[in-house]
Amino acid sequence: MNINSILYILGSLLIFVALSMLLPILVGFYYHEEDAFVFIITMGLTFISGSILRKFRFNKNGLKYKDGFVIVTLGWLLVSIYGAIPFFLSGILKTPIDAFFESVSGFTTTGSSVIMSLESLSHTILFWRSLTHWLGGMGIIVMTMAVLPQLAGNMHLFRAEVPGPLDNRIKPRIQETAKTLWFIYILLTALEIILLKVNGLPLFEAVIYSFGTISSGGFSSRALSVRAYNNIIFEYIIILFMFFAGTNFNLIYSIFKGRINEIYNDEEFRFYLLLLLSAIILITFNLFFNVYGDISTSIRYAGFQVVSIASTTGFATVDYDTWPPFSRWILLILMFIGGSAGSTAGGIKVIRIQVLFKKGLQELYRLLHPRAIKKIKVNKQSVSERISTSILGFFFMYITVFVLATISLSYFGIDILSSISAVAATLGNIGPGLELVGPLNSFMPLPQFAKLILSCCMLMGRLEIYTILVFIFMDWR
Amino acid sequence: MNINSILYILGSLLIFVALSMLLPILVGFYYHEEDAFVFIITMGLTFISGSILRKFRFNKNGLKYKDGFVIVTLGWLLVSIYGAIPFFLSGILKTPIDAFFESVSGFTTTGSSVIMSLESLSHTILFWRSLTHWLGGMGIIVMTMAVLPQLAGNMHLFRAEVPGPLDNRIKPRIQETAKTLWFIYILLTALEIILLKVNGLPLFEAVIYSFGTISSGGFSSRALSVRAYNNIIFEYIIILFMFFAGTNFNLIYSIFKGRINEIYNDEEFRFYLLLLLSAIILITFNLFFNVYGDISTSIRYAGFQVVSIASTTGFATVDYDTWPPFSRWILLILMFIGGSAGSTAGGIKVIRIQVLFKKGLQELYRLLHPRAIKKIKVNKQSVSERISTSILGFFFMYITVFVLATISLSYFGIDILSSISAVAATLGNIGPGLELVGPLNSFMPLPQFAKLILSCCMLMGRLEIYTILVFIFMDWR
Repeated sequence: MNINSILYILGSLLIFVALSMLLPILVGFYYHEEDAFVFIITMGLTFISGSILRKFRFNKNGLKYKDGFVIVTLGWLLVSIYGAIPFFLSGILKTPIDAFFESVSGFTTTGSSVIMSLESLSHTILFWRSLTHWLGGMGIIVMTMAVLPQLAGNMHLFRAEVPGPLDNRIKPRIQETAKTLWFIYILLTALEIILLKVNGLPLFEAVIYSFGTISSGGFSSRALSVRAYNNIIFEYIIILFMFFAGTNFNLIYSIFKGRINEIYNDEEFRFYLLLLLSAIILITFNLFFNVYGDISTSIRYAGFQVVSIASTTGFATVDYDTWPPFSRWILLILMFIGGSAGSTAGGIKVIRIQVLFKKGLQELYRLLHPRAIKKIKVNKQSVSERISTSILGFFFMYITVFVLATISLSYFGIDILSSISAVAATLGNIGPGLELVGPLNSFMPLPQFAKLILSCCMLMGRLEIYTILVFIFMDWR
Repeated sequence: MNINSILYILGSLLIFVALSMLLPILVGFYYHEEDAFVFIITMGLTFISGSILRKFRFNKNGLKYKDGFVIVTLGWLLVSIYGAIPFFLSGILKTPIDAFFESVSGFTTTGSSVIMSLESLSHTILFWRSLTHWLGGMGIIVMTMAVLPQLAGNMHLFRAEVPGPLDNRIKPRIQETAKTLWFIYILLTALEIILLKVNGLPLFEAVIYSFGTISSGGFSSRALSVRAYNNIIFEYIIILFMFFAGTNFNLIYSIFKGRINEIYNDEEFRFYLLLLLSAIILITFNLFFNVYGDISTSIRYAGFQVVSIASTTGFATVDYDTWPPFSRWILLILMFIGGSAGSTAGGIKVIRIQVLFKKGLQELYRLLHPRAIKKIKVNKQSVSERISTSILGFFFMYITVFVLATISLSYFGIDILSSISAVAATLGNIGPGLELVGPLNSFMPLPQFAKLILSCCMLMGRLEIYTILVFIFMDWR
């Protein structure tokens, strides 16, 4: 292990986070809020820590294979810890675990909150919460890669943070890919802010919601989330951008380049669309016959909630936990599936489900035609045994982590459905779940230890489990 | 497809079932019950149907590869339909779907019941319910194979009915294996009957419970199931035999042959034991601290319930649905795992979970040591890519069927936890679930269509999904 280089990069990461705290400080000054000083202190602390770590020199030998896992795991932990300081220092959250939970939930773009009353928060703190989403959405390491020359070409670092089983490079060189991704990300954010602003949402809130949307995060500035506005235009703008957030950024890049046909031809995108549409139709009918008795209201709520959950954003326009079991259960299943690979969404990812489904059908085909050989293809390219095994491994580990975490939660007497949905919502980086952790409830009342487990779930989900497992089980020499 | 041969075998199967109806008729005569006549009529009907099918001649060309899937699927359907007639004719169940549900539940050794008051049933009917368990437990096709010379050597028929991913032959010739399995099965049943009888249970009930135990079925003669007796000796005898029922019969054969060391060396058996013990310990502590406050009561209930659910039997000594979420959730997870391959138990099977777990660890190993190659081994033999792919396919299909069935159930407004547990309990051939379908409740109040879906789940679970899928998707020429 190349400890010097690792510490140097972790230091750079902290400096980056420290610099990003300038933004909430500016917000604080603009609104004349005391919390600005909380961020000045935190920024100082983070900057000094980063500078100390940067004293270690980046080794000429560069990074070894396993160093990537160490950097990503420790990097996310460190950033979450330093990001938690303002919540604790400002007195909003009383325990370090609560503050850590809120910060992890921000950076991992989960959006589960332990804050009981959002309306009492300062603009400064609200802005920071949403900024953690935005920074974590594209990936803090990818961000660092885009600017740190030492990290150019480190494929593994890139793969550990950008979700999905397949190679996801837009450009041949990784650093260029990182820059392109960030360019698209910033452009989409700006576009959403402008659209919301033009349609009447105050700038501050337009920024908050755009950060929460593009990153598939879900933190909001109101306890009632998007529901507070009861404005159908805002809802449709947010639906559109949540949909983008759950789409592979390679495809969005194709749109920019005018290669529209690539979208039609992408199997994952078609399946993602199919999933969304089927879920919207099923839930619309269920709501129409059992709840609202009005088709346009039913479509409006079903559309928003399905896209919000499937893209793992977690905004709500209605307390979907009061819906009939059918609709709630479909939403819960969507939490497991998640969005597309190479997007900011969490969950197992559509493409993995697709490959597993094809594997299941391949077995059926083998039984039907014992002598024939059929290879699994995605987008006309055959999926190697190596990749499909790795997808299987991921799927099974996801279920295993889910089972172990729910068992731990239920140990505290949390009812089964709340446990299931709390773990599904954090492991999949969605945000709210059902029952105790429904869209109008906070994670606050859960026991401290349960919050720690759920924080781990968020990190596990964001880094797709194996990065952390390798970190834990690697040979520490 | 060799239709003549298929019909001939299906006919033989019906004749076999018709002959087995002699037993409830004898019971009916012994207890002077009118229901005996119900069985005389049903027996006649079944016998005539079987004889007509036997008019088709078994073709000299024998059976083709795909014919096995047709025989097994249609065979189980036919047997379940004819087995349902007594429930309908006797007037106990008012609709054909209810009668079919009870019969499928019997033959697939699920043990979910739509009968509201067991105490009002005649001995004749009670005996038939338990006999369907016993006949279905080892496999009606395996049974037919043991006596029909035409089926000697048909490996595929055997594999389609005996659960598990690996080759499970005790003897080199399949017909001998079938006979040996039946010999062990009968011996274990006789042993349990004698032990229960000697300890004071009336002979009739000893037979009922033994049939329900060895087959991992779970039908009982009392609404309170085993709880009705409140007799610790009965409970421990039943625990022991439920444990056997969930163990690979190859291993039980090894005990008979005095090869005890094979048991220690069997990985699946060790894992099965480990699962049971961990679950018993966890639930015992949970019950001790939260419910009973008495360690021996806690062990007694936890031990019985864990072995009952893990072996997919489904007997109950207590309303476990009133237990804390932790204990209920562990039981629900055990429903998915199920017992060992090559046993009468249902569920995904311990060995599959083990292989998937090893696959997950293999992926971790590959990430830790990118250049090394590690093969997956079970019992010191490496698992081929072919088998592990088939296990993956099965696992994913199991989850898919589970998800689709729960969505359908929740459509009728059945709450999520009841839907989840009803499907888990029927697909895994356990019997009772949680909430609406808890151990003291009946499946009766569910909508007819929901019962039909759950009946399909039971068949899917018993025949390990793919047999039915191949039947549906095969080329019917």
